Amino acid sequence: MEFNMNEAIDVLERTPKTLEHFLSGLSDGWVHCNEGESTWNAYEVIGHLIDGEKNNWIPRLEHILMEGESNPFPPFDRYAHLNDTAKVPIKDRLLEFKRLRSINVQKLMDLIESIDDLDRTGSHPAFGVVKVRELISTWVVHDLTHISQIVRVMAKRYGVDVGPWKEYLSILK
Amino acid sequence: MEFNMNEAIDVLERTPKTLEHFLSGLSDGWVHCNEGESTWNAYEVIGHLIDGEKNNWIPRLEHILMEGESNPFPPFDRYAHLNDTAKVPIKDRLLEFKRLRSINVQKLMDLIESIDDLDRTGSHPAFGVVKVRELISTWVVHDLTHISQIVRVMAKRYGVDVGPWKEYLSILK
Repeated sequence: MEFNMNEAIDVLERTPKTLEHFLSGLSDGWVHCNEGESTWNAYEVIGHLIDGEKNNWIPRLEHILMEGESNPFPPFDRYAHLNDTAKVPIKDRLLEFKRLRSINVQKLMDLIESIDDLDRTGSHPAFGVVKVRELISTWVVHDLTHISQIVRVMAKRYGVDVGPWKEYLSILK
Repeated sequence: MEFNMNEAIDVLERTPKTLEHFLSGLSDGWVHCNEGESTWNAYEVIGHLIDGEKNNWIPRLEHILMEGESNPFPPFDRYAHLNDTAKVPIKDRLLEFKRLRSINVQKLMDLIESIDDLDRTGSHPAFGVVKVRELISTWVVHDLTHISQIVRVMAKRYGVDVGPWKEYLSILK
């Protein structure tokens, strides 16, 4: 086990700024490319991250701390952002993500009062008993997963253009 | 084929700042974790990216533009950075990468005078004939590969901590 609260926050607070520097001002070709039908482009991934800030991580943490295992927390709709038809520029989505994350990191620090809170348990609708430390670890890994997804999707856009170098580029496989 | 010079530069000039915002000030636990023996941590990946700025991309481009297919460009040592025993802080490595990349993006813009230059050919020591556009595309995808590698390595650090959520996190598989 490697989890450490300060280190988890280290990542959580860096993700929005990292994505902002990577994606703001990037041409549409990069922002709107995907891996084929029913896959997400970078714009959609940011929408999903915003949904997570609103409906997943902190609400679930609050639910666990209030209700324990007695009442499973509601499922999170991983596709909700696809219903958001308001096409705001990605720059604004990134600012919204940054704003919400900043509030949520502060809430996280306020909610976890002692190291013992990390072992408190709740009930996941599919998995059953889960711990607070597992939820927060997953929040971190979820960030990393979606950064990885964004760069993979972009890399594949040049899958043909790299010519024979494809052999050396495992991300294209 | 998707390659477009301005879009390629869009990514090349964003990579150092993106990594700087992600990795600067991050705790050693994140910076020095790896995927096991003979794998690279984030610190080592930045060393490899610096080597590429010094010895790979622009030197190869200059070689192609000067020598064409007549003389293969020298192989690039992908492990050279592991011999660098001077343990400068990662913050300084990131600044060095940013400095070199900025110079090299300017050189790239100076060297490619017209769209026809993108079709000029050189000789790769392993692959044989390669085009300038393939080299530049590979430079872009190489950046994306190593961003992806850094976040994957970090994600795996919490492979156990996430508990049952592992099932939903493909990056851990």
